[in-house]
Amino acid sequence: MITREEFARAQERTAATLAAAGIVITPEERASIEVADFGLNDLERIGLEIIVYVNTDRCCAKELVLFPGQICPQHRHPSIDLEPGKEETFRCRAGQVYLYLPGEATPNPKGFVPAERADAFTVWNEVILNPGEQYTLLPDTWHWFQGGPEGAIVSEFSTRSRDDADIFQDMQIQRAPEVAE
Amino acid sequence: MITREEFARAQERTAATLAAAGIVITPEERASIEVADFGLNDLERIGLEIIVYVNTDRCCAKELVLFPGQICPQHRHPSIDLEPGKEETFRCRAGQVYLYLPGEATPNPKGFVPAERADAFTVWNEVILNPGEQYTLLPDTWHWFQGGPEGAIVSEFSTRSRDDADIFQDMQIQRAPEVAE
Repeated sequence: MITREEFARAQERTAATLAAAGIVITPEERASIEVADFGLNDLERIGLEIIVYVNTDRCCAKELVLFPGQICPQHRHPSIDLEPGKEETFRCRAGQVYLYLPGEATPNPKGFVPAERADAFTVWNEVILNPGEQYTLLPDTWHWFQGGPEGAIVSEFSTRSRDDADIFQDMQIQRAPEVAE
Repeated sequence: MITREEFARAQERTAATLAAAGIVITPEERASIEVADFGLNDLERIGLEIIVYVNTDRCCAKELVLFPGQICPQHRHPSIDLEPGKEETFRCRAGQVYLYLPGEATPNPKGFVPAERADAFTVWNEVILNPGEQYTLLPDTWHWFQGGPEGAIVSEFSTRSRDDADIFQDMQIQRAPEVAE
């Protein structure tokens, strides 16, 4: 649960981050910036700001904003019926993003997680993306990512997004945002 | 056929256009900027500069650059076997782009085409995209587009690109670029 004030502040900060990077959004997009706190009420540490440009049955594009050190928690996009899970490419546009994937754990990773939630981060193979760099993730791959010291703007190019189908490592997570009345 | 010099100049101009808009590309992407003159040897008027970020079996993202007044000529993306044709969203990032689609011809359109090729432009329903504005095109829809007075940068989010399957209105067009030795 996130308060209305916190939600509005996060939207404002997201809009300012995009504007500073020269990324233009429409007033409608500005008003519908998604602020995901994943139901953890710890937005500064675990959260993600999202602008969905397009999401059809076939493909999807979003702009993701991470505040400095903010984490999108570990999850995967499973196959549903006959449709393979979401394939996504993360392209860093500004700042820096630390992406974590299955594979050999990177020694001394740059990322850090809340101690009380450390169990919910099990993949530690690190890919650091600077502006202009990108990584394509195959369906159903566990991953999490974190904004660097100055945060990050990340373009996501993917197949259809079905957020409600995402599987999170942390059982406490609730993907659909709830804003306090 | 385009000369090596013209090709290199167009790449340089494209890179400068992106840099001016704060869009970062890698040195590898810089080196592989595609300059399409559609075999017409008239790049300033008919041509398109392209950076392919990702193009898998399932989805694709590109950055398109149009010089001022430059035209991507009329074409469509047909269905192939059981795969529906390419669905694409054009999102203007900088400058202005004039997009033309089937439907009622717009009176006094902003776009203009070379007189000797006017027959190859048959759809004149105009959509003007300013930065932050976008349009999603259904498969197999005839379309063409032109950079405004200051050119344009357009992000294209789509299903798989199969340029060799594109159908152009102008029979003289050859999609695969040829650079003079």
